[in-house]
Parts: sequence; C-alpha cells; structure tokens
Amino acid sequence: MAKKLQKIAVLTSGGDSPGMNAAIRAVVRSCAYHGLECVGVFRGLQGLIEGDFKMLDARSVKNLINRGGTFLKSARSKDFHEKEGREKAHLNLVNEGVDALVVIGGDGTFRGASIFIKEFNFPIVGLPGTIDNDIHGTDNTIGFDTALNTVVEAIDKIRDTANSHNRLFLVEVMGRDAGHIALNAGIGAGAEEILIPEEDMGKDRLIESLERSRKSGKTSSIIVVSEGDQIGKNIFELAEFIKTNMEGYDVRVTVLGHVQRGGSPSCYDRVLASRMGVAAVDALLDGKRDIMIGTQNNKMVHVSFEEAIKEQQKIDLELIRVADITSI
Amino acid sequence: MAKKLQKIAVLTSGGDSPGMNAAIRAVVRSCAYHGLECVGVFRGLQGLIEGDFKMLDARSVKNLINRGGTFLKSARSKDFHEKEGREKAHLNLVNEGVDALVVIGGDGTFRGASIFIKEFNFPIVGLPGTIDNDIHGTDNTIGFDTALNTVVEAIDKIRDTANSHNRLFLVEVMGRDAGHIALNAGIGAGAEEILIPEEDMGKDRLIESLERSRKSGKTSSIIVVSEGDQIGKNIFELAEFIKTNMEGYDVRVTVLGHVQRGGSPSCYDRVLASRMGVAAVDALLDGKRDIMIGTQNNKMVHVSFEEAIKEQQKIDLELIRVADITSI
Amino acid sequence: MAKKLQKIAVLTSGGDSPGMNAAIRAVVRSCAYHGLECVGVFRGLQGLIEGDFKMLDARSVKNLINRGGTFLKSARSKDFHEKEGREKAHLNLVNEGVDALVVIGGDGTFRGASIFIKEFNFPIVGLPGTIDNDIHGTDNTIGFDTALNTVVEAIDKIRDTANSHNRLFLVEVMGRDAGHIALNAGIGAGAEEILIPEEDMGKDRLIESLERSRKSGKTSSIIVVSEGDQIGKNIFELAEFIKTNMEGYDVRVTVLGHVQRGGSPSCYDRVLASRMGVAAVDALLDGKRDIMIGTQNNKMVHVSFEEAIKEQQKIDLELIRVADITSI
Amino acid sequence: MAKKLQKIAVLTSGGDSPGMNAAIRAVVRSCAYHGLECVGVFRGLQGLIEGDFKMLDARSVKNLINRGGTFLKSARSKDFHEKEGREKAHLNLVNEGVDALVVIGGDGTFRGASIFIKEFNFPIVGLPGTIDNDIHGTDNTIGFDTALNTVVEAIDKIRDTANSHNRLFLVEVMGRDAGHIALNAGIGAGAEEILIPEEDMGKDRLIESLERSRKSGKTSSIIVVSEGDQIGKNIFELAEFIKTNMEGYDVRVTVLGHVQRGGSPSCYDRVLASRMGVAAVDALLDGKRDIMIGTQNNKMVHVSFEEAIKEQQKIDLELIRVADITSI
Repeated sequence: MAKKLQKIAVLTSGGDSPGMNAAIRAVVRSCAYHGLECVGVFRGLQGLIEGDFKMLDARSVKNLINRGGTFLKSARSKDFHEKEGREKAHLNLVNEGVDALVVIGGDGTFRGASIFIKEFNFPIVGLPGTIDNDIHGTDNTIGFDTALNTVVEAIDKIRDTANSHNRLFLVEVMGRDAGHIALNAGIGAGAEEILIPEEDMGKDRLIESLERSRKSGKTSSIIVVSEGDQIGKNIFELAEFIKTNMEGYDVRVTVLGHVQRGGSPSCYDRVLASRMGVAAVDALLDGKRDIMIGTQNNKMVHVSFEEAIKEQQKIDLELIRVADITSI
Repeated sequence: MAKKLQKIAVLTSGGDSPGMNAAIRAVVRSCAYHGLECVGVFRGLQGLIEGDFKMLDARSVKNLINRGGTFLKSARSKDFHEKEGREKAHLNLVNEGVDALVVIGGDGTFRGASIFIKEFNFPIVGLPGTIDNDIHGTDNTIGFDTALNTVVEAIDKIRDTANSHNRLFLVEVMGRDAGHIALNAGIGAGAEEILIPEEDMGKDRLIESLERSRKSGKTSSIIVVSEGDQIGKNIFELAEFIKTNMEGYDVRVTVLGHVQRGGSPSCYDRVLASRMGVAAVDALLDGKRDIMIGTQNNKMVHVSFEEAIKEQQKIDLELIRVADITSI
Repeated sequence: MAKKLQKIAVLTSGGDSPGMNAAIRAVVRSCAYHGLECVGVFRGLQGLIEGDFKMLDARSVKNLINRGGTFLKSARSKDFHEKEGREKAHLNLVNEGVDALVVIGGDGTFRGASIFIKEFNFPIVGLPGTIDNDIHGTDNTIGFDTALNTVVEAIDKIRDTANSHNRLFLVEVMGRDAGHIALNAGIGAGAEEILIPEEDMGKDRLIESLERSRKSGKTSSIIVVSEGDQIGKNIFELAEFIKTNMEGYDVRVTVLGHVQRGGSPSCYDRVLASRMGVAAVDALLDGKRDIMIGTQNNKMVHVSFEEAIKEQQKIDLELIRVADITSI
Repeated sequence: MAKKLQKIAVLTSGGDSPGMNAAIRAVVRSCAYHGLECVGVFRGLQGLIEGDFKMLDARSVKNLINRGGTFLKSARSKDFHEKEGREKAHLNLVNEGVDALVVIGGDGTFRGASIFIKEFNFPIVGLPGTIDNDIHGTDNTIGFDTALNTVVEAIDKIRDTANSHNRLFLVEVMGRDAGHIALNAGIGAGAEEILIPEEDMGKDRLIESLERSRKSGKTSSIIVVSEGDQIGKNIFELAEFIKTNMEGYDVRVTVLGHVQRGGSPSCYDRVLASRMGVAAVDALLDGKRDIMIGTQNNKMVHVSFEEAIKEQQKIDLELIRVADITSI
C-alpha cells in the first residue's frame, strides 16, 4: 500500500507565464490546509536535479498572487533529458522525504514528467502554465488570458498611431505552433487580418483582402501575425511584399516579444491558478499520480498526461468565422 | 409565412457594461455581412418608444471595440412598463421597417422583451450585458470579466497601503443580489474574507475568523463585501462593529462604486461580445424569436427568455472552498 | 569637529505614497556607492523608538522600484510626540552607530524631525513623500504624479458610465487641506467643475454653472471634489442639494478613497524618488543636517525644514483659469 | 495695422504623440471662450495644402482628452517643402478667412512653420508635441511623460520574465537622436545599463560593467537602448556580441516600437497640453506670431521658433549620475 501523503514538492518549468505565482501559492496553502508539508523547488527540473529546495508555509507565499513571473524561477534543463539527471532528481526527492510533485508548465514539462513517473513510479500532478493555450484537454492554460489582455492593450496603442497616420501595421504575437493568442487577440483588438499557423492564407489572398478593405473605406489596418504562421514567419519580408504590391501603403512592423509573458495576472488567471492549485493537492490526496488538472466547461477535470501531450489544442472554427465577420 | 428578414434594430438597456460597444459592433457588422440593414436605437427601450433611431453601417462602428460604456446610450424606461409605451415602441419599429430586434442588457431588459414578444409577436434576441454575471443560462455575461479585473486592480492598490500600515480594509463591490463579483475578485485579490449575499456569515463568525488570521501572523487584511451581503449591507456599521470587537485594529472602508462599470473591455469580454453579436444575427436568420444568446462550455447556446429570467445564476460552491483554502 | 559619516538610517513615516520604495532604494544604493552603511527602520518613527532596525545593502532593495507602498512600512507615532519617546529613538540611533537619518514623509514628519534635530543635534535630511503635493519648497512630492494618474484613470471609467446614462457624478478625491489633486486631475479628466478648499464656490454658483453646462448641450457631467472643500465636505449632502435644485438630474457619488495611495509608481515618481534619494545622501555627505530635498525648476534643491513646514504649497492660479476655459 | 483676430486654424503634424487631442481640445475651447472661430485642419501641413478643413466648436472636442493619437490625423508633407505647396496652403488659409495658425508637432514642423511665417507674414504659434522631448526651450513636450510610463510598464513586464529565467534583455526604445526616453525610463525601470546617443559607452566598457553586475550578485539584467545609440544601433548585433563575450548568458532582444507613441495620455500630459493650448490662443490674442509655447520651471513661456529649432534639448548630467548610482 502506498505511503500516506505527507510532503509535496512544487516547481515551475519551461517558459514562465502570469499566474504561476498564484498557482504555487494555492498549492502551498492547500498543503497547509490539509496539514501537509510543502517544499518549493527552484529553477524547475534543473533545480530538482541540483536539490535546490526550500520549505514553504502559508506565510511564505503572501503578496505573490498579483505578481507576474514565478518566484521559484524556471529554467530549461538538458540534464533532465538524461537518465542520470532524472535519477539524481529522484534521489533528491526521496532524501527530502517528498511523496509527490506538482509541476507547473507546458507540454515539454509534461513529457518529462510522464517519463519520470514511469521510471520511478513517482506521483506527479501537472498544471498547465503557458501563455500559448496549446495544451490538449484544458479549455484554458494559466497565463493565456493575461497575455491576451497584454496584446490587446498594446494593439490599442498601436491603433492610436495607425489611425493618426493612415498606416498598416503588422503586429507579431507569440505562438510558434498555435494561433490561439493571435486569433483571440486579433478579434479583441479588431484586427483587419489575422495570420495563424493553422491556416495558410497565402500572400496573394492577403493582398486581395487588403485591397477589399481599402475599397470599403478603411484608412488604417492592423494585421496580427502569429510567429509560427507560414507567410508571417518572416514578418519583415512580408512587410516588404505588401509595400511592393500595394501602392501608397505605409507599412510598419511591431514584434511584441517578451512583454507578452509578464505582467500582473488578470483576475481570470488568478482564479484559474488558485482553483488548479487546490485541485492538484486534492488529486494527490485522492491517489492520482499521472494527470494534469484541466478546466473543461468551467469545471476542474483530470486529464491523463498521455492525453494532454498527444496533440495540441485545436483552433475553434467558430472564432475564425467571428473574426471574418466582425472585421468586415 | 414570415416575412424575410431584412432589417434589424439593436439597443442597449439597463446598467451599462464594458463590451456593450463590442456587441453592438458585431451585430452591425454581422448585418452588413449578411446583407441586412441595421438600425441603432438610442437610449434603450425609452428610445424605442421615442423613435430615436439611426442607420448604422459597417464603418459606423469603427474604433468602438475598445471603448467602455455604450455609444447607443442606455436608460431605464418607466414608459415601457405601460402597455401604451410598448405600443408606441412597436409602431415605431413597424414604421421604420424593422423586422427583428437585438437587445443587450440584464434580466430586467429580458423581462420587458419577453412581454413585448408575447404582445406583438415580434422577434427579439437578447445578449446578456451586465457586470453582475447573474443571468441564468450563460456562464458569463458581457462585462463581468472586465469588472473583475477593475476590482482586482483596485484592491491591489489598496493592499499596497494596507500592507504599509498593517490595516484592515473593507472593500465594497457591486452585486446587489449576487456575489459573483465579490467571490471571484476576492479570490483573485487574495482577500482574507469575502462576504456575499448567498451566504450569511454572521458578524461573530467574521470576528472569530479575523482573530484566527491575526494569530496566524497576518498583519493586514482585505475583506471584500458584496453590496447585497447581510452583514455587509451597511459597510460603515460593520466597520464600527469590527473596531469595537477587535482591539488595536485600524479599520478603513472603500466603496468602489461606479468605476466598476466602466473601462476598456478585457480581451475576453471583447471576444465574448463579438461572438454573441454574430450569434444573435445568426439566430434571427435562423428564425429564432424569443431567446437569449448564452455561453456554456465555451460554446454559443440559445436559452429561452423564460429560462433566462426564471432564476439567478448560482454561486459555484467550489469557488467558496477555493477562497477558504487559499486565504489560509 | 563632526564625526565622519559612516552609517545612515532611512525610514518612511505618515501616509504611504507610491515611490517611497524607489526613494528607499536610492538611499540604500547611494550609501553602497559611497561606501556607507545603511540601516532601514521599520514602521517609521515608532520603529525608531522601538529599535526595529535592519541592515540593508544594494541587493536588499532589488525589485522594489516598481512597487507601491513602502516595504519599511509606515505608522503614526504618538510616542514620538513625547520627549521620552524621542530620547529612546535617539539612544537607539546612537547604540546602532547611526550618524544621520533620512526621513521620507509629509509635513507632520518634518515637524517631528525638526524638533529632534534641535533636541539632539542629530543630522536629518527629509524627502517629501505624500500624494497631496502640499509641501512648501518643492514643485512635486513623491507620489503626487502617480495619484493623479490613478484618479484620472478612475474618472475615465466613471465617464464611460456617465456618458451612457446622461448622469452627473460627484467624485471625491483626496486632499484634506489642499486642492492640488482635485485641480490637476480635474483638468486631466476633463471635469465640468472642480471644488477645492482654496476657493469657496458656494452652492448657488455651482448650480448656476451646471445650468449653463446643460444649456450648452452637455448631457453628462463630472464634478471633482476635494475632500476638504467647503461645500463638498459632505459630498452626499451636496448630491442631495443638486438633486433638489436641478430637475431631472440623475446624480451619483463616488468616493475614490485609498486606491489613490497605492499602485505602481509612475515613471516620473520613480525618477523623482531616485534623484531625491541620491541627493539626500549627497547632502548628508556635504554636512547638511536640517533640510528637505525639493525639486524646483526640475533641479534638486535644499530647503530648510523651517521653510518646508511654515506653510502649505499654494494652488497655481493659472491652473484654475485653464480649468475654467477647457471645461467650457 | 493688423486685422483683429477672428479665426484660428489648428493642426497636428509629424509623428503623433499622446496628448495631441488634449491640446487641440484646449485650442478649440479657448477659441470658444474668447469668442473666436476655430477651424481644424486634417492631415497636418498636407491637409493645409489640400484645404481639408472643418469648423470645430466646444462640443466637437468632447470625450477627446483621454484619447491617444490625434483625431485631426497627421501626415508628412513633401509638398510643403516646395514653395508652390506653401503658396497653396496660404491661399487656402486666406480663402477660409483664417487669421492665425496653431501647429502641434516637433522640430521639423517648426522649421516648416518658420519658413511659412517669413514668406507670408502669417502668424503661427507652435506647441511641442512629440514623445522624444528633444525640443530646445521647453522642459517637457506633450507626450513624453506618457511614453515614459508606457516604456516603464513594458519593462516591468519584461523584468518578470527576466527574473524568472536569469536572463539579460536588451530593450530598444525610441529616440533617434536623443536619449531622453532611454535615460528617464531606464532609471524608472531600474535598468542595469542605459545606452544613449549622447554618450558612447563602447562595447568593451559595457561588457566590463555587465561582468561587475554579475559579480555583485545580479542574476538578471535589463539594458535599455536608445535606437540612435552608437553601439546599440544594431541591437541584434549587440546581442550577439554580448553572447560571444559573456559565457552562460541567455540574451534576448525586445524592440518596443510603436506602442510607445500611443495610449491614453497621462494626467501630466493632459494638463500640459491643456495649458499649452490655452497659452497658444492667449499668445495669438497678444499679437505673438512666431513662437513656440514651452514650459520652463513649470510656467508657460514663449520661445521664438528660431530658438526652438537651433539645437536639441540636452541630456541632464545629473540624471546620468543618478542612473549610475541607483543601478549599483
């Protein structure tokens, strides 16, 4: 029979996202609530290997819920890809008396966790923490909502200047493989065009569409481009193409970059992270050992890691239609 | 057989909420997309009675998606409670050649709409526009998410000064009958206590809980109070009660008030409003004539007005537990 | 001859204001730059009496420049009004080996400092930290600019809802004795009327002016009221007076309250606080012992405490004229 | 004798900046206050040539004070560089019955205005509207303060992620010839290094300084780079140089770009713009015909165009010292 759960470790891994601190806080306080010990692991899976641990109690996580980033820091770990590294990590957990682990990160982190569980039969529960919202099995990831607001506020500012000068702006947003940020923020910002990796618009159709916009009386335009989009991948080249093919257009490029990862989390992300942190400890107490916490239909659900990493969250076709109609 | 749909009117009614402009914009552009005419009605149901109409095309609603409030303005209408008023309204619609109506507002608006539909057999589709999120049949109302962010940002600021002075703050938020804003924003702001109308905590239990917090080492506290809460209804009296019953506590009150209604809508509310606006015109084209558009499980759904107004959206008990655990 | 300066203490006192952390950070880093030791005093003058000290080095103040409030916390100290309290404070400073003190606060703090300097011949330099901008001898106080932005953003939100409903809003802002916040934020928010303690408008003139506004075609109005204003002191009474005397007006009241003290400081306040912190240590190194650092004509200046506390910063009549003209 | 002033035209020219709308509003309302007519010119000097005029009254400029950009739009005008273009412009002004012109823009605009005044003896008053704060004779330009807040908020977000990953970020800000934005925002954001065109640091000194930072215990760094800086001009090259010369550093680049031009103006910029707009009309009424309105020592002043364009506003050496000390 399994040992009774007494001590939980928590770490953040991969790219940071707003709400990770809120999630850590919820895990720590949920441990305190259930009379469990909680240990924080610094610098993600690499810190696990190096034994970079610190005990956390309910007061350790005060004034954190509104902070962007992750106070446990994050890091990519090459060592964790090696059996040797994972063995060290496991040994550290055992020596520290840790019975289970909560990992907050994206699909890369879950892949690593999945291997670790199989190798050492060690219970892990994952929380989806990434701005990209590309995790299968959860309607939302921690940080996605905040990133959308950040992007939309930035584009609102760019539109001020676009309107003042009758300009066309290409705005690159994050999303190497997934267009969720581009599509939602594009609708929210009232973008004239949205280019995402899931759909290949083609340069010629883009020009046609821009010509239609111009004829319909639009004097300035915002095109939101996902960094992984086929024709938008090299955004500066695309800008040149538009300049060459549309006379009299003043085209500018803005790459939003890392501002999208930071910032104080939105209320939605704080609540989602809090719920997920509580659900993670509940799940471990309930004997779960190989799952991600997700949100579906606004309820907390358990999704096997296998399910979570087998494919990427799909784009909602309804949203593409809404984008088309409302940008008319 | 019903006349083919050619002209739609749109209005906002009741308290304004952020995202109403985005919803109007989506209705107008969806009409343009489908080749329908669209007429805006100013000042809600009262404007319907007074015939305060204006034709709107796709360009009429540019640069509106990011604006708080409603450019069509809103108003409470006593006249619409009278048969005579409603008859005038109907006559105006008929004279204007309007075939169907989209109303954006709360349950009061839907009650009025419901009567109107029965009396004149006139097609109406409703969009839930209110910051209170108290409408049955939809997971979210337009404006709720923005209001939560506004409240959380305000409390973040208050916490700066609470922390600097070891003070206790009572913060009143909107929600006469429903605690949705208080509960979500309270979790998001890391409030120590949350008082909502759905649960009667009682003054004595509140004092006990505050004493426990103090003993656990907390030096400042935020209590979020829904304006309709039993013991929080008169927030200044409650503050006096705490001062009297807890020695050495510096207690302050902040009533957030109407800032909660305004502000540029969040990305979530802009996208929700856009989807709902598109779905409203789709529904009318599809022959629907007595429904509210809602969102359930992140999908657009049709909810009969009867269903929407029969009761208020319930508080999620999971959230109350999350609030309890994460404020430990 | 005076002992060579080796150790400086720093504290924040009175009401907190955004930028106080930036000022502390600059004092601490300036000490590190000059090879001086720096000790932080918690909870202001009361902490000085209770010996609540902590050594601070350059790294102790990282990630603080953008935080509202004061991490050294602040408190009002009755004990410091007594000779006995001040003697304890002095003894603590001597025992700790502190050679000089930097106090960040308002005129109350400076009055206390002034007495202390005379009694113990102990060097003190003050930094003006208050949102009210009511300190004589400096064009700006640390926190004023941030508070103005907070107020203006709040009123922008209120205006969304005021415009949507054709309403009149009374918005109370801080400023018990001084109208600086009301006057500047009132101009910045495009308020129709601004009521400040320095000018007694009288209720009748207010009504006349509102009638003129109404006739000129204004459909909604914002009146910014300083909490210390003659007719605005009881803002709810004033609202009733307007309702009684102006037919058909929907009048609402919002008291902005403590949100005005918090929030991440504006760039201006961060730079001002950084400059003043550096200037304070420079002044002490230069043998100054009884001055406040001020900013005049965008230069750092030395103002004797006597000068700083003898009267309050005056309202600029040019601003009153600008308010009158631009609200036409 | 000069004709009595009856009609004033106002335009915005060059790059847009936050607060331009507030300035236009103040000019328009000041005209209304003094009983003058006011005509808005769209698209700057090009619109002057093309006669793109519209009468503006006090109500035309409502709800504009909080909007970024310029509703009169702006444009660069090649035609205005030609005598022929200016003659058309003059003819349009005469035909429209305009007696004087207020131009809001940067030094390029003032140069054009200066020539126009000489050629046609036509009264022009300029307002400094640019985010760069590079105009001689005024302590602040309209839009500078807002841009600083925008930059500082963006870097706060980048620092969240920099701290979470122990990274070095190069952040490029606007300022082709002047380092005012970089220097002030760099201090405000707590940047470790600030590279400005006015000072050539040299790559080797930069590496030395970064090494010192690392030794002092800093684990992440922000370097703010003015786009016109010698070594920062090609920011991606500089990033490569740092990677090559500092082992184990994860270096990232963010180019903030056009978000810096937009956004709702800060309270400071709204008040400054309002004051300057009022002062412009005062100056014209007072017979001035060849000046820029500036702010010096927080007072409105008149600066001849000759003075304003003869050189660029200098960097304040005190600020460079404050940057050095507070980033220790």
